[in-house]
Amino acid sequence: MTDNIIALATGSSGAIGVIRLSGPDVIAICNEYFKEKNLLEQKSHTIHFGHIYDGNKMIDEVLISIFIAPNSYTKENSIEISCHGSDFIQQKVINLFIAKGLRIANPGEFTMRAFLNGRMDLSQAEAVADLIASSTKSQHEIALNQMRGGFTSILKTLRDQLIEFASLIELENDFSEEDVEFANRKKLTELVNKILEQIQTLLDSFRYGNAIKEGVPVAIVGKPNVGKSTLLNVLLNEEKAIVSDIPGTTRDVIEDTIQIDGLLFRFIDTAGIRDTQDHIESIGVQKSKDQILSAKIVVYMDEIEEDFEAIETRYKELGIRDEKDSIILLNKIDSFHECHAYDVEEALSTKLNRMPVLAISAKEKLHIDRLKKTLVKLIKDEHPSENAFIVSNLRHTEALEKAKESLQSVLNGLEQNISSDLVAIDIRHALHHLGSISGEITTEDLLGSIFGRFCIGK
Amino acid sequence: MTDNIIALATGSSGAIGVIRLSGPDVIAICNEYFKEKNLLEQKSHTIHFGHIYDGNKMIDEVLISIFIAPNSYTKENSIEISCHGSDFIQQKVINLFIAKGLRIANPGEFTMRAFLNGRMDLSQAEAVADLIASSTKSQHEIALNQMRGGFTSILKTLRDQLIEFASLIELENDFSEEDVEFANRKKLTELVNKILEQIQTLLDSFRYGNAIKEGVPVAIVGKPNVGKSTLLNVLLNEEKAIVSDIPGTTRDVIEDTIQIDGLLFRFIDTAGIRDTQDHIESIGVQKSKDQILSAKIVVYMDEIEEDFEAIETRYKELGIRDEKDSIILLNKIDSFHECHAYDVEEALSTKLNRMPVLAISAKEKLHIDRLKKTLVKLIKDEHPSENAFIVSNLRHTEALEKAKESLQSVLNGLEQNISSDLVAIDIRHALHHLGSISGEITTEDLLGSIFGRFCIGK
Repeated sequence: MTDNIIALATGSSGAIGVIRLSGPDVIAICNEYFKEKNLLEQKSHTIHFGHIYDGNKMIDEVLISIFIAPNSYTKENSIEISCHGSDFIQQKVINLFIAKGLRIANPGEFTMRAFLNGRMDLSQAEAVADLIASSTKSQHEIALNQMRGGFTSILKTLRDQLIEFASLIELENDFSEEDVEFANRKKLTELVNKILEQIQTLLDSFRYGNAIKEGVPVAIVGKPNVGKSTLLNVLLNEEKAIVSDIPGTTRDVIEDTIQIDGLLFRFIDTAGIRDTQDHIESIGVQKSKDQILSAKIVVYMDEIEEDFEAIETRYKELGIRDEKDSIILLNKIDSFHECHAYDVEEALSTKLNRMPVLAISAKEKLHIDRLKKTLVKLIKDEHPSENAFIVSNLRHTEALEKAKESLQSVLNGLEQNISSDLVAIDIRHALHHLGSISGEITTEDLLGSIFGRFCIGK
Repeated sequence: MTDNIIALATGSSGAIGVIRLSGPDVIAICNEYFKEKNLLEQKSHTIHFGHIYDGNKMIDEVLISIFIAPNSYTKENSIEISCHGSDFIQQKVINLFIAKGLRIANPGEFTMRAFLNGRMDLSQAEAVADLIASSTKSQHEIALNQMRGGFTSILKTLRDQLIEFASLIELENDFSEEDVEFANRKKLTELVNKILEQIQTLLDSFRYGNAIKEGVPVAIVGKPNVGKSTLLNVLLNEEKAIVSDIPGTTRDVIEDTIQIDGLLFRFIDTAGIRDTQDHIESIGVQKSKDQILSAKIVVYMDEIEEDFEAIETRYKELGIRDEKDSIILLNKIDSFHECHAYDVEEALSTKLNRMPVLAISAKEKLHIDRLKKTLVKLIKDEHPSENAFIVSNLRHTEALEKAKESLQSVLNGLEQNISSDLVAIDIRHALHHLGSISGEITTEDLLGSIFGRFCIGK
């Protein structure tokens, strides 16, 4: 890749705009438009105040930042032009460089070059896009962790050991007439088991990682008129007030995501669930039940009453699977004796194996904080141990799943003492899938699909 | 002004975001969050790669640009932090600095500090906001010219000479008992006349400058169904295609502005004009007539017909003032003999003192280019000579008008030989108004109203 690329790296309507250039000739080309100094004589990581000229016509007062290869993000010569935040000026400056043969960068092309030039591995490059998209504390943490190397560093060590075995086994194949055994089967089995264990831990973390990245799906279910919409509005309104001091957040589009304590919760709209004879309506109810299945947390909402066993019966009728995290909300305590409310809570929770039961009033905004704390606790309890690595990328999970399959074939092959060339093939498959995570093995299609999801200018 | 300020300087949804800091302590404070190097030991205009930490928690991988006073935009110590374009990260970083006592900058506060610290005069500072807002070639040129010093440099020389006379006349006042004359009345009259001439040229340029800055108001008038909306759509659609490769232009909001050849035209919606007995409708017609008065260019649209004198009669019924730039459009030539069309054009134009008459077809998009060229020519013909200065700022025009009044009083006073203390007062008034343009004389209110119109971060 030897061509020179350019893109606007900042968003619109700012006070300043930054135009980014990368490629072997960008400093020389920029120098042609800059009169104050010879940019080719400047050191890396220096900033130069001056003007961009189109012939004799001044276009803008700018700051030029110079990065000389390999000390730049892309490891190529790079320039950043900081100009006034006018679309007209930015477009004009970009056009000047296009006239000199620069090309508008593809989405993610700066980061792709950083990857191809060895500045980062593929999973780190993917984390850059996650980092830019992060809008909550926990998304930010996961992306940052992955960008710093994440779990690929662990996998790399294990993978290197596996490569050694692969070579030894392939060596055996070359000597297949002589019945030698270079690779210690016992040690290989141990290694494969160790890798499988590591993979399983990572796969297990995806449930948490994906929930953090995409938002934790929460279904609020219950009969009509128990206060589901009121509750959702209370949660949304408080959220709106909290988010408003973060400029430019785009959560207006997805009306039902709520950030609590740095975690994103995605509330699933469920039609009121009740027995019905109406065919069309029963389809709606079925849909609600499907959404309960896809939710990570189910909030069952009912009206509080003295007869807690009646509530229990109605809850059980929903048939929510046991492994689901459930919360029971007893609404409308504003028209109930508060001291009694705690008794009902306690009795029902005891009956339901200490499931969280919370008496609230959505209308009067009473005890909403307890609900929030409980939601957060359910997710945080699932967080792997403090320093564990978390997989949040579907592509990584799929690669890990495939590597797991191949490694299980290796184990089976070893147990059944099948011929070493077949074992070697399975090991190669596992290596391939593990290598695809960090990008040691890639295809152009894969890179295209990964970096195509980036924004332009990164 | 000794406090430290911070603001996000770039727009939302970009690949990178730039956070700007200015004030005596910003380098030291930034150093507390940056572990890789001691930023206090770095040279001005250098860039440092590293990480922003909140305690032991890494927040982001960043580039830190250092500008040491007085070599910065504000002439204070300044830092620019280039981080990933996530709202969450940007807000987090800004909050870290707010925790150390920095304050979110007011709109335009960086530029206000640049002005107060002598980096630019007030009219130059105002041009920075115009530059950021510029969306056409001609707006960009005017803003850039003003930012480079514009007409204030000329005024400054004249003003300095006037100050000298003011001092001499005030000296006479001190010796009023002795009837001396230090100030040469003839030379003073000459100077005042010279300044008045200069001011008049600048005032004349405002008609052009304001049209460029706000968009040239164009009224398309004519009876209903002559094709006004079709024409507007044709103009708007072509424009949309042209603008689409400039990212983030916000012209969707103002649906009827059109950029032609680097000039912005603002089309005024006029209800069809016709005689009516209906009272309500006649109010609408009156409104249309008022809008014609406020337009700079009136495009009269009619259907083409052989009887050009009938068209002339209908046009004259509108009673458009002679000084207005008018264009007559003869629409629907698609259902007319084309060679005849030119005859009608020629005959009508001759009759109307060579007014531009253009035969077009809005529906078939025929000869729309001729209309565009004519619109542009009408504006460019009004452009003051090549290197003339153009006033585009209403505040400057008002100050010039007031200075003109005071100077005319000075002339009257000199003619009528009134006492020198009264002349001195008028000169002081003129000096005050001239000085207010470049900001030599300002009030806090004035600064507030000027910089309050800026975006935050500039």
